[in-house]
Amino acid sequence: MLSIKDVAQLAGVAVGTVSRVINNSGAVKPETRRRVEQAIQELNYVPNEVARNFKMQKSKMVALLLPSIWHPFFSELAYYIEDELDREGYKLMLCNSSGKPEKELYYLEMLQQNKVAGIVGITYNDIESSVSTDIPIVSIDRHFSKKITCVTSDNYEGGRLALRELVKAGARKPAFMGSVTAVYSETMKRREGFVDEAKAMGVDYVVYEKPDPVTDDDIYYGEFLRDHADVDGVFAITDMFAAKYIERAREQNIRVPEDVKVVGYDGIQDHAYFHPLISTIRQPVEEMARMTIQLLYKKIRGESLDLETYRLPVTFRPGETT
Amino acid sequence: MLSIKDVAQLAGVAVGTVSRVINNSGAVKPETRRRVEQAIQELNYVPNEVARNFKMQKSKMVALLLPSIWHPFFSELAYYIEDELDREGYKLMLCNSSGKPEKELYYLEMLQQNKVAGIVGITYNDIESSVSTDIPIVSIDRHFSKKITCVTSDNYEGGRLALRELVKAGARKPAFMGSVTAVYSETMKRREGFVDEAKAMGVDYVVYEKPDPVTDDDIYYGEFLRDHADVDGVFAITDMFAAKYIERAREQNIRVPEDVKVVGYDGIQDHAYFHPLISTIRQPVEEMARMTIQLLYKKIRGESLDLETYRLPVTFRPGETT
Repeated sequence: MLSIKDVAQLAGVAVGTVSRVINNSGAVKPETRRRVEQAIQELNYVPNEVARNFKMQKSKMVALLLPSIWHPFFSELAYYIEDELDREGYKLMLCNSSGKPEKELYYLEMLQQNKVAGIVGITYNDIESSVSTDIPIVSIDRHFSKKITCVTSDNYEGGRLALRELVKAGARKPAFMGSVTAVYSETMKRREGFVDEAKAMGVDYVVYEKPDPVTDDDIYYGEFLRDHADVDGVFAITDMFAAKYIERAREQNIRVPEDVKVVGYDGIQDHAYFHPLISTIRQPVEEMARMTIQLLYKKIRGESLDLETYRLPVTFRPGETT
Repeated sequence: MLSIKDVAQLAGVAVGTVSRVINNSGAVKPETRRRVEQAIQELNYVPNEVARNFKMQKSKMVALLLPSIWHPFFSELAYYIEDELDREGYKLMLCNSSGKPEKELYYLEMLQQNKVAGIVGITYNDIESSVSTDIPIVSIDRHFSKKITCVTSDNYEGGRLALRELVKAGARKPAFMGSVTAVYSETMKRREGFVDEAKAMGVDYVVYEKPDPVTDDDIYYGEFLRDHADVDGVFAITDMFAAKYIERAREQNIRVPEDVKVVGYDGIQDHAYFHPLISTIRQPVEEMARMTIQLLYKKIRGESLDLETYRLPVTFRPGETT
């Protein structure tokens, strides 16, 4: 049986060089690459799956569809996803898909043509009708159907935790502040957890929601401040919602945290140089990114997964707003 | 002479569909694509450069090498670069190269193998020895040699502007605060502009620099605060340097802007929800991104460029620190 050593010997290079050529990872001089490829052909060397993929010209590229790489939560996620892919020699193709559903469909087509090996998607489209169950796609946060594996933070527990922290900080009438997407999304569980925990604790609460996306901040926050003046705690669906609320509350001389305690979700502030540092439910971004890629590899290899949705635990990160 | 219409007729599809197949943009059903490709082959249709590239299997992929996509300046840049590439049907491959020089060399090899059409690089390596003049690479910010086209903000004018704004705000002894990379970089002109303008205006000034990267903030800022207690203005080489200085100054009861005026560089804060909003020299990120891609296209097409370095004007964005 032929081994990688035979190839290396015939090409007159080290075994590591042959491996780099086969895996298409690391720098190899073009002429060296040619010698190795010639030796592989001459010997008709097809030792294992890696080499077979190489001969079949399987793509070592994964597409990442994000609403916008500019958003700090998504750029942190992309950072770790690229890092995890790099460990196996995969490359990252990046797509800002916000407001452009046709871009997402285009990447699905690339997947069908084997131009990308898999897709990681934070997608706003309902692509359910376009895909089959076993296609190598892993979704983050947004959970459309049973067909697509989803990795998410534990939004429900996050909502419960936020309610408890607000009460602990002294809030007696906390509000949930969010927006509702047309298609069901995992993030809606943030409200569910908040409401269930308020009921369980016998706490008076408010739910304030508008359709997503919120396009007019003046109306959104103005209406909340006008109609819910008695609220003394806010759990905002994201840190950005929290930051915007705090700014507008300040304009009306409502002090945070003295008058109103605020808890956000995400943990986009990775340092304490800008204020307020929002007290928040921190998503385990790095773990979510690495798990997503590990699950994607399994799907690429054709393995079946145990679960449809993988939920990772969240933590409360105290800041300056509770 | 054959036209795209002949292909469309033979394949039994619309002209737009043929165009989408040729440009590899937009969704086309696999079977339709096959029909179009067959018609192209049958007619031996090679009408223009776009189609020729298609037949030559030229890559429609551009690699973007960034130190880290997580940094807000780079994620804004990546956002606009992807958007500009998308207009011509190019895809973006993203690589966090910080601290991994071998990754940059790997992408250079992909370029030589036509797996990517071009590279946009904010690179820390001196890749001068590895590349030829006409290779489709455009660098942002970091300018190593005459071989690589560079797009940058006008760092020198930015430095002059910062000095003037500090003086205008009342500073009588401003300091430049930065770090020095081993290889020459365009960003060093920020200090040059600052110093030249201070000399021209007859203003007393301080230059405080340490080798890049700054690894120990305690030492870096501690030493500055200890040795330069008489400074009443700071021009920090980036907004993050400014933010870190402000935080540490506050711990020593130095108020910004009352005691010390601070101007940063970049403009990473794209909203005013977190404080302090740093007064800063704002880089024209969107323009830099779009110009970079337009120049890269010219290099891909083999056109020669007028300049080695393209400098885009900066503006002063007043914040809460002057």
